[in-house]
Amino acid sequence: MFTFSLPAKIISGENCIAEHSKELSTLGKKAFIVTGKNSAKINGSLRDIEKALEQEHIPYLLFDQVTSNPTIDLARKAAQIARDQHIDFIIGIGGGSPLDCAKAIAVLATNEVDDHQLFSGPYSQPFLPVAAVPTTAGTGSEVTQYSILSNKHLETKTSIANPGIFPKVAFLDARYTLKLPNHVTIHTAVDALSHAMEGYLSVQATDFSNIFAEKSLALLGECLPLLNEEPTLAIREKLLHASMLAGIVIAHTGTTAVHSIGYSLTYFRDIDHGRANGLLLAEYLHFLNGAYSNKIQAILRTLQLKTIKEFSSLMDQLLGEKEEIALSEITRYSNKAAQAANIQNTLIRPTEQDIANMLKHSLTFIS
Amino acid sequence: MFTFSLPAKIISGENCIAEHSKELSTLGKKAFIVTGKNSAKINGSLRDIEKALEQEHIPYLLFDQVTSNPTIDLARKAAQIARDQHIDFIIGIGGGSPLDCAKAIAVLATNEVDDHQLFSGPYSQPFLPVAAVPTTAGTGSEVTQYSILSNKHLETKTSIANPGIFPKVAFLDARYTLKLPNHVTIHTAVDALSHAMEGYLSVQATDFSNIFAEKSLALLGECLPLLNEEPTLAIREKLLHASMLAGIVIAHTGTTAVHSIGYSLTYFRDIDHGRANGLLLAEYLHFLNGAYSNKIQAILRTLQLKTIKEFSSLMDQLLGEKEEIALSEITRYSNKAAQAANIQNTLIRPTEQDIANMLKHSLTFIS
Repeated sequence: MFTFSLPAKIISGENCIAEHSKELSTLGKKAFIVTGKNSAKINGSLRDIEKALEQEHIPYLLFDQVTSNPTIDLARKAAQIARDQHIDFIIGIGGGSPLDCAKAIAVLATNEVDDHQLFSGPYSQPFLPVAAVPTTAGTGSEVTQYSILSNKHLETKTSIANPGIFPKVAFLDARYTLKLPNHVTIHTAVDALSHAMEGYLSVQATDFSNIFAEKSLALLGECLPLLNEEPTLAIREKLLHASMLAGIVIAHTGTTAVHSIGYSLTYFRDIDHGRANGLLLAEYLHFLNGAYSNKIQAILRTLQLKTIKEFSSLMDQLLGEKEEIALSEITRYSNKAAQAANIQNTLIRPTEQDIANMLKHSLTFIS
Repeated sequence: MFTFSLPAKIISGENCIAEHSKELSTLGKKAFIVTGKNSAKINGSLRDIEKALEQEHIPYLLFDQVTSNPTIDLARKAAQIARDQHIDFIIGIGGGSPLDCAKAIAVLATNEVDDHQLFSGPYSQPFLPVAAVPTTAGTGSEVTQYSILSNKHLETKTSIANPGIFPKVAFLDARYTLKLPNHVTIHTAVDALSHAMEGYLSVQATDFSNIFAEKSLALLGECLPLLNEEPTLAIREKLLHASMLAGIVIAHTGTTAVHSIGYSLTYFRDIDHGRANGLLLAEYLHFLNGAYSNKIQAILRTLQLKTIKEFSSLMDQLLGEKEEIALSEITRYSNKAAQAANIQNTLIRPTEQDIANMLKHSLTFIS
């Protein structure tokens, strides 16, 4: 039994925004561009969107204040502007933070909800439609129904998961990822890898979601070993497709324990989201390998690797020196992770002790 | 550069209609069930849809007069009933004929168009939403924007191709295919095969459409050699998934010369659509093999075959004795096919003489 739904029209290729500007006019009459402070200006994506909107005679407003791991308050502030200015659709440009923030704004612009209800609903009004322009190859947010925000009430990152925030259009132009610093390219690619792997290993995986997971893993297996050098545009396009495919996977399977644990490393230690997941992946494979060695062998084979040890070496090569972690932190993060919603998707639900062991062996343990 | 869009929510599995009856209530308030005279009653699909509609308190009307290769006039007759009865959504149940007819009714129920405009547009009104329940594993119509009707004006089959007729929901329950006569199972599976192969060999093929083509071919490679025996439910489910995946392929790539030629074999000689395509496939591979041997090798490898000769033997095993064809017929059909719209998707556009050669070698030639 499976259900598959992909509400986003995916448009990929060099100059695809200019060539498909008409898609924007199907979304509304006044646009709100949601992005971060700098990167969309540097990589050309913002200019391409502005030109396309001008081409289609669509007035727009720019909100360029999205930070990493955006908060609920930031989304509220932007949503208030969207209301005041009678915005009727949102264009998110950037990595996961601006895209997820754009989706949260789409909810908040039409709904009066408190911080708890923002994540749980119910919502009285339909959300504003969203278009997404990823400028990193990792989040997959352009093809998911998730918006992940920093939640001070729960001291972690929390997800809105609602089909209404699934972007209507995703524009994938790998040129926008050309100027990314190498560590960002690596951390985001590793985020895509963790989506594909966790999706394949989710209790919600289906034959259909596995088609996308396997293709994503095959592309990543080709690209990851090359990422210590500056990647070519062709490699960057493969990474962008791998990230989108892995997004389609987690849209159906959810993420698993790796994300549950990784959120604490990001929330408390400010470790990049993709890196946080990447640090944990090898230990996660060890954890599941007893009962699910067939699945793990399939993943390794698709990545063109033979053993978990080889996988671990590849991660070490990409991620470099690991952060230190103290026992008090391990205890705190394990407790948080054990309560996370997505941990239920894990094939074997880890205990707090299991999580503590994974953390201890994934980072540099200082007692 | 590619664009990918899959507007249908795909719901697959035993008893999926009953378990997801709520999906129907998102489509409208009064349903028109469009199907053939017998099979939906025998295989249980009609009863399951009726029960689901009752469960959701949705009144409905049954139109069970769809024949093989439905005509424009038949679709007009049904559309008139839909108008008179204030129907607001359509449920197609069956093989390609009822599903395609359901889509044409969805256009005609809201639009006054003549026979030419039915295929070309423009259309002044949005179409009625369509749900699709395939009961053969071949057409893929549940996930395409095509409706193919017998067109007496052009003496061939002609397609409506419009995103507005893409089904909103597709219910895939392989149990409905359990009672199919063996020759229907084979001919429809070969139709799916021709979609996957032609899609892979279309000028419109992309990396993304190829993901679906490859998976479809892999499933078919597993199932086809077993089809001279009555297939198990597990095999039937694989066939149904292969057919759906191949439908997603042609939704993006269109079909190619094989379909262009096959339409005459169906229109004039009443050869089943899938069988007509299957008869032509081996010669089609020969035709392209000079310039595109890499692609053809990839197809054969995915099917777990080594040579075109092996492929040809598999088709012979499945299709049995071939129909006779006379020179006068070859001339007439070649002329028709050379004018078909989908022949433009072929990697090397065949001349009338090329088509005549393919026909001559694909059937039993009687001079």
